[in-house]
Amino acid sequence: MKQKTETKAAAFNHSPVVYAVGLGPGARDLLTPRAEEILKSCTVIAGYSTYLKLFPDLLEGKKIIESGMTHEIDRCKAALEAALEGEKTAVISSGDAGIYGMAGLLLELTEIPRYASVDIQIIPGITACIAGAALAGAPLMNDFCCISLSDLMIPQEKILKRVQSAACGDFVTALYNPGRQGRLAMMTHAIRIFRESAGKNLPVLVLHDIGRINELVHLSDLDHFPYSEINMTTLVIIGNSDTLVRNGRFYCKRGYPIEKQETFSV
Amino acid sequence: MKQKTETKAAAFNHSPVVYAVGLGPGARDLLTPRAEEILKSCTVIAGYSTYLKLFPDLLEGKKIIESGMTHEIDRCKAALEAALEGEKTAVISSGDAGIYGMAGLLLELTEIPRYASVDIQIIPGITACIAGAALAGAPLMNDFCCISLSDLMIPQEKILKRVQSAACGDFVTALYNPGRQGRLAMMTHAIRIFRESAGKNLPVLVLHDIGRINELVHLSDLDHFPYSEINMTTLVIIGNSDTLVRNGRFYCKRGYPIEKQETFSV
Repeated sequence: MKQKTETKAAAFNHSPVVYAVGLGPGARDLLTPRAEEILKSCTVIAGYSTYLKLFPDLLEGKKIIESGMTHEIDRCKAALEAALEGEKTAVISSGDAGIYGMAGLLLELTEIPRYASVDIQIIPGITACIAGAALAGAPLMNDFCCISLSDLMIPQEKILKRVQSAACGDFVTALYNPGRQGRLAMMTHAIRIFRESAGKNLPVLVLHDIGRINELVHLSDLDHFPYSEINMTTLVIIGNSDTLVRNGRFYCKRGYPIEKQETFSV
Repeated sequence: MKQKTETKAAAFNHSPVVYAVGLGPGARDLLTPRAEEILKSCTVIAGYSTYLKLFPDLLEGKKIIESGMTHEIDRCKAALEAALEGEKTAVISSGDAGIYGMAGLLLELTEIPRYASVDIQIIPGITACIAGAALAGAPLMNDFCCISLSDLMIPQEKILKRVQSAACGDFVTALYNPGRQGRLAMMTHAIRIFRESAGKNLPVLVLHDIGRINELVHLSDLDHFPYSEINMTTLVIIGNSDTLVRNGRFYCKRGYPIEKQETFSV
């Protein structure tokens, strides 16, 4: 069916907008006030089912566009349609909407003429590597990078070239989407690349269900990487040559000239 | 003077703790509820003068440990001393405390025997590249890295090797601390490296005073890099080969199979 040219939004005399909202890792007190305010003010909220369940009170009285994984395009299009119909609409992502979230897809969809009039506003959130790092210490203290190991949309060679570059540059590296049981080939390649590039063992942080009730931090290393633990909610942070593990805390020195034996005179 | 072995904290029968709190970029509604709650509950707050001014209401009735830049070690030691004295103490950083903030230094200082008993808790915040990205679109949509160009504590060769690796891996790259007028040598090197590695011009995002009243977004590119604009509050994001600039928005495609000419049937 051909779409109407005059939308309800136009009739309402405001330009249609979709908010791409990052929810943070899942803990309510890491949801920003800005995100909460926007969600409260929206009439339609679209999201992946798991994320919609995080803060049920914020969904009360809203129209919900719910779908499973791999339905991202349909979900975002439905949200854009709702905005054209005059609804104040949010599409939620866990973490930050702009890091492996829905912000990019929404912007990309506005290249379709039908959606060109929709303004996409991005509301930032705390991404998994920041929340996970805080649990364990300060692994991201110096330069770091984020790589998704999911090969659904990016060719494996491109991902592995990035892993190689990260290892070569001695970056601390947060690996998103490390895989799941039976699909750990990319993770296995990554561990091998870091091992070969560093020429030595490096500390590794394995984080499960960051910000959720089953949150778990596991300090490990390249030589003892716990493949059997990895699942869809795992984030892996590979340390670099400056990473220290002391008293169960995982951190990188920033380089301040500290005298370690010094006592403080008071 | 030799320190007392029994501190007030011990006498109070709770273990001393210092919270490393990330304030986010500076907008009040991007300060997390967790950070706000912790700051309210603390009796001592330590920070760089500029950051202490961000949320003055949260400082009311607190003892303040204030110092300028380059006094990070003294400030953190003073905070650790306060914790040993029984004060509930926070050290604030802008952005995230674990990304170029004070979390790493505090953890490192607990290697000094006097501070070994102090528990360092990190409260995450929204770092500048996430807040800045949200202003401009979704530049960090795919893999990205963060590099500080400050050579105060890291040798220039190490920084430039990271820049080279980031360019080689076709990462989107957020450059923190790009320099200031008269000290832009590292920035100049970085632009040259990205230009040579890409073999073509790339979009560049120049962000000033993110989250503050003078917030400004400038879409530029490697060939027209606005050196004269760069100052201490600038963040630079270099796009990669997948970065698009469309209608003033800056984003990376995630790789979803979108039919661009498609119309949506309703």
